[in-house]
Amino acid sequence: MPEAGVRVGLVGLGTIGTGVVRLLEAHSDLIEARLGFPLRLTHIADVDLHTDRGVALDRYRLSTDFKELVDAAGLDLIVELIGGTGVAAQVVASALQAGKSVVTANKALLAHKGAELFALARDNGAEIAFEASVAGTIPVLRALREGLAADRIHALQGIVNGTCNFILSEMEERGEPYAACLKRAQELGYAEADPTFDVNGTDSAHKLTILLGLAFGVHAGPGDFPCRGIAELKPADLEVAEQLGYRIKLLASARQTPQGVEARVEPVMLPRTSLLAGIGGALNAVEVRGAFSGSTLYCGAGAGSRPTASAVVADLMELARARRLGIAGRVPPLGAVELRAGGLRPVAEEEGEYCVRVQGGGDLAAPLVAALAQRGAHVTSLLQDAERAHAVATTRRTRRADLEQALAGLGRRISAPQLIRIQGDL
Amino acid sequence: MPEAGVRVGLVGLGTIGTGVVRLLEAHSDLIEARLGFPLRLTHIADVDLHTDRGVALDRYRLSTDFKELVDAAGLDLIVELIGGTGVAAQVVASALQAGKSVVTANKALLAHKGAELFALARDNGAEIAFEASVAGTIPVLRALREGLAADRIHALQGIVNGTCNFILSEMEERGEPYAACLKRAQELGYAEADPTFDVNGTDSAHKLTILLGLAFGVHAGPGDFPCRGIAELKPADLEVAEQLGYRIKLLASARQTPQGVEARVEPVMLPRTSLLAGIGGALNAVEVRGAFSGSTLYCGAGAGSRPTASAVVADLMELARARRLGIAGRVPPLGAVELRAGGLRPVAEEEGEYCVRVQGGGDLAAPLVAALAQRGAHVTSLLQDAERAHAVATTRRTRRADLEQALAGLGRRISAPQLIRIQGDL
Repeated sequence: MPEAGVRVGLVGLGTIGTGVVRLLEAHSDLIEARLGFPLRLTHIADVDLHTDRGVALDRYRLSTDFKELVDAAGLDLIVELIGGTGVAAQVVASALQAGKSVVTANKALLAHKGAELFALARDNGAEIAFEASVAGTIPVLRALREGLAADRIHALQGIVNGTCNFILSEMEERGEPYAACLKRAQELGYAEADPTFDVNGTDSAHKLTILLGLAFGVHAGPGDFPCRGIAELKPADLEVAEQLGYRIKLLASARQTPQGVEARVEPVMLPRTSLLAGIGGALNAVEVRGAFSGSTLYCGAGAGSRPTASAVVADLMELARARRLGIAGRVPPLGAVELRAGGLRPVAEEEGEYCVRVQGGGDLAAPLVAALAQRGAHVTSLLQDAERAHAVATTRRTRRADLEQALAGLGRRISAPQLIRIQGDL
Repeated sequence: MPEAGVRVGLVGLGTIGTGVVRLLEAHSDLIEARLGFPLRLTHIADVDLHTDRGVALDRYRLSTDFKELVDAAGLDLIVELIGGTGVAAQVVASALQAGKSVVTANKALLAHKGAELFALARDNGAEIAFEASVAGTIPVLRALREGLAADRIHALQGIVNGTCNFILSEMEERGEPYAACLKRAQELGYAEADPTFDVNGTDSAHKLTILLGLAFGVHAGPGDFPCRGIAELKPADLEVAEQLGYRIKLLASARQTPQGVEARVEPVMLPRTSLLAGIGGALNAVEVRGAFSGSTLYCGAGAGSRPTASAVVADLMELARARRLGIAGRVPPLGAVELRAGGLRPVAEEEGEYCVRVQGGGDLAAPLVAALAQRGAHVTSLLQDAERAHAVATTRRTRRADLEQALAGLGRRISAPQLIRIQGDL
């Protein structure tokens, strides 16, 4: 009897989709040896089948209509690599309704429609695998779901957007403004033509919702926690960070507190000696602290055609094994139950140690310290630089709202006030 | 109908065993929520049941005879945490013969008897899970087995012995000799009373055999590749490394070459700017380079009661799920097939860039360079320090045997010749 293998249909032949085609061709021997049966890509759908992507497509059944692909007889698994929350949602939903498990790299889709899609999967005996949706090639979701499954997670923090990390690394190394470094990132392919969702933190927030589910069993939407981007950062902020022994990184972080899980996406100052501060360029890294496991860190390429394809096909292999064994839902897709009381901590309670930088003429130090003291913020260090016309204060743990009011009270004396949280040990 | 759960017997109540008892008690709610059924530790066997370990044992069926435990009716899974290759081998073999899957942290056992035990597991429809055997709490075996399953691994390197990493970090920071730093490691619990297998590289070699199987499908014994330890390193070696921009780490490494997989355990000089060079103290880290995934790095606690217990219980959860689903062997335990030609590259062909340090009176530079040139070794840099009475040369890629002959040719002029490989990018 011929070995038919498990048959796969791919929707979306962009950068990652093309990487998946390449990987399946290059490693078919290895994948068959590891699975014990072949994994066959047979169908591909994309609205554009004419652009030359450097891969031969004549061996595949091609279609411009994803519905045709999802309905095709004999397909076992569907890969959704369109991105976005429109057509992609239809692809995933219709595949699940047909009882076909889905692999996706689509963090926006999971962040906005994850709850209903996971329910749909469960009701139809199918699964959604999504390792590639967070931190690209790095198997950090597997680590949380299985490797650390016995542990209670206390906190996590991650650099999960390579575009921002590249821009910040460039700003620091070259001392150039944000706009110039963004332009270079675009030229080098590290940033898209429209980089909005990367640089304003939205992409990191999407990924954090997924991490919150896996690590804390908290089901949150991307609007449920503070999210700030990097576009307002100046070279002076990166210089000040260096003076103080820190490095600025856009961090997605979450921490269990007695008042609930505190989650946020924002640029923070990390101690330069920390491992995360050493993650440069377009790399991603996630650090997790558990009650028994202590701190573990996972680092690698967070994006790119080939690295992301590695994660997508690893998921395909897991789903193919499940299909062969006739099982589904071996491991719940997200922390199935809310394990700690409290859910998300309200945004209004945001607090931390902060670095405050204000610009203006004359002596800024005295009014800055006075304004901070008036709002109950204890200053732990102060720098004033006449040449740069700025003053910088660091504070003890303070409510962010109090700092914002203190700065508002300074009125016209200052311009471009900058509040950057100082991230301590995880 | 009452939910009986999956029942576990534990053999070996040492440091890790006690951690497993503590974790299962502390996280029983979380584990049951994640599994959907309880995981119950019911039986414990150890030759010593009288030492106070700070955990209450009255709720368990205790025995000093592991055979009694393995034969006990109703046990589903067995945890072997005795260590060594004697009784531990009997425990694992008898459990597998009874069709019971086993979790172990025993790298020596897997390195020496892995092939027969994995065969025994297969023949009896049982499994061996061993995440804790390499790099403690870090789920790096899961990363290789599943997260990177679609990729072809080109190379890996790891700091997999926390004792050695602690001693080297201390030697570097304090400039103190090996013996004093070993003593401190023993006082702080980072080294055992008899540290031989840690400091001579044996423990790292055991772990490398496991990584070789998972990453390359190469089945090797610990004697099949070069293995050197750290006891011969002097503070001067660590100083020279710093002068040259490196840091010395005991590395287990493997790399696919056209002549086969090159594997070794030895202290090497790593560029100080690399992530692995930044792994200090008793931490472990493993870096893996794949054809598509690029370089990924996994870091965390490599030993210790609580971190290792996290890995052991995560394995128990995986095996408990498999038992509930009636499946075994979902993922082959090691790279089931030899995927690349060549097996291990012969030890005699060891080569690389090296740092050569020799001690003695008078001018050492001229005879050293002459001796190296005579054996075809190109010198890329040279340092001579009269105060330390040593000369240091770095070489281009050279056969180690040629360097050893060059040094032997210098005869009595020099003492304590030191050959340390310079590790380039992975």
